[in-house]
Amino acid sequence: METTQNFEGRHTVKEALLTGLPIDKLYILKDAHGLSEIRRLARESGIPIVECDRARLNAMAQTEAHQGVIASGAAHDWAELDDIWQKVEQSGLPPLIVVCDGVEDPRNLGAIIRTAECAGAHGVVVPKRRSAGLTGTLAKTAAGALEHIPIVRVPNITALLKDFKTRGLWVYGAECGEEAQSIYETDFSGGVALVMGAEGEGLSRLVKENCDTLVRIPIYGNTQSLNVSTACGVILWTIKTSI
Amino acid sequence: METTQNFEGRHTVKEALLTGLPIDKLYILKDAHGLSEIRRLARESGIPIVECDRARLNAMAQTEAHQGVIASGAAHDWAELDDIWQKVEQSGLPPLIVVCDGVEDPRNLGAIIRTAECAGAHGVVVPKRRSAGLTGTLAKTAAGALEHIPIVRVPNITALLKDFKTRGLWVYGAECGEEAQSIYETDFSGGVALVMGAEGEGLSRLVKENCDTLVRIPIYGNTQSLNVSTACGVILWTIKTSI
Repeated sequence: METTQNFEGRHTVKEALLTGLPIDKLYILKDAHGLSEIRRLARESGIPIVECDRARLNAMAQTEAHQGVIASGAAHDWAELDDIWQKVEQSGLPPLIVVCDGVEDPRNLGAIIRTAECAGAHGVVVPKRRSAGLTGTLAKTAAGALEHIPIVRVPNITALLKDFKTRGLWVYGAECGEEAQSIYETDFSGGVALVMGAEGEGLSRLVKENCDTLVRIPIYGNTQSLNVSTACGVILWTIKTSI
Repeated sequence: METTQNFEGRHTVKEALLTGLPIDKLYILKDAHGLSEIRRLARESGIPIVECDRARLNAMAQTEAHQGVIASGAAHDWAELDDIWQKVEQSGLPPLIVVCDGVEDPRNLGAIIRTAECAGAHGVVVPKRRSAGLTGTLAKTAAGALEHIPIVRVPNITALLKDFKTRGLWVYGAECGEEAQSIYETDFSGGVALVMGAEGEGLSRLVKENCDTLVRIPIYGNTQSLNVSTACGVILWTIKTSI
């Protein structure tokens, strides 16, 4: 697996942006002219723009012709939902799918992917918006797990959860509050979709409403919550050992 | 809690280095003269030296007199082993202590501290050498947990484990290999010291030899191992719910 893929030069970067190829950052020569359309496209896709000097761009470049603009692209392709169902079928086990509701930090998403793969989950689903790309930092944190588990982007998490329910999955949302029931008092038998929320904010209201059950990890200390990937691990191993 | 504490100016930084105050990075003005002793002290303590320009130093400085050198220091004081025993006594529970054998990445150590505190552990012990300091990145990753759990540095982890055993604790080392037994087949009753190894390398040979039992998390996927803080979480909640 390549760890990063650059798109370099004005035409290449513009095409990559228009085609919607996964790009996580756009590096632009400070004070360069004629890049306003590229800037606009990046802004519209929520891609951070980093202004830098020529020395830095030259050092980053994988080609000789960056023309003042480099987009660092995905290390890995997104999969399709069908890839997940295929993996479920091959395993002969009930579906176990992790859904990330707005986990934006690539380290956290990478750690969740690594955790999910280790736990034998069949796939990870993220929303098209507000989610980290499958790029350098994420790939590094995922420690090779990207090779073994399909990662799927969907436009709408709520619609996905509704679809999961029609397929007989039970949707569990991870929550910190008292409204949730302990994972140790929860029956995880059957197909499971586990929804992890953004660090800090937790699950969005709409997603929460579309969960069958909200579950929480009992906390024995003073710190309010676990890191999202650690929480995901504790819940996944509880699921794996309780079914 | 302060998130970072700077030591600024030549005399202050030199004193901080000589006294062994926890410093995680030394920022030095590029091409500055008369800093060779400070450089040598930092190198001897394994503190990374970052060369930067005056603008960056000015921006970092918390005082008006950095004289071309800033050491970013600890956000939090180290505790003593007695603080851990006191916490054990207050809790009325068997001791539960996490020992980190060379976890050098401050994010990982911060995440372990957060996880340990959430799990109700009584303390975290790290070696004096080869361990991240209680500074900015670590404190941020620990998400406030530093306020609630004693973090202790000891010169020698092997000696610590021997001391733990004389106090009746059972020492478990987290391992990935087949030599270890599943955490789900392990009796964690009584006082527990859980030793987590460095990412990649795992436990050192000497530490491994001083563990009573090596334990492993069953892996259901293709990725070889979990992130160290995630693994720590999975094991700690297994301990908490099995005793």
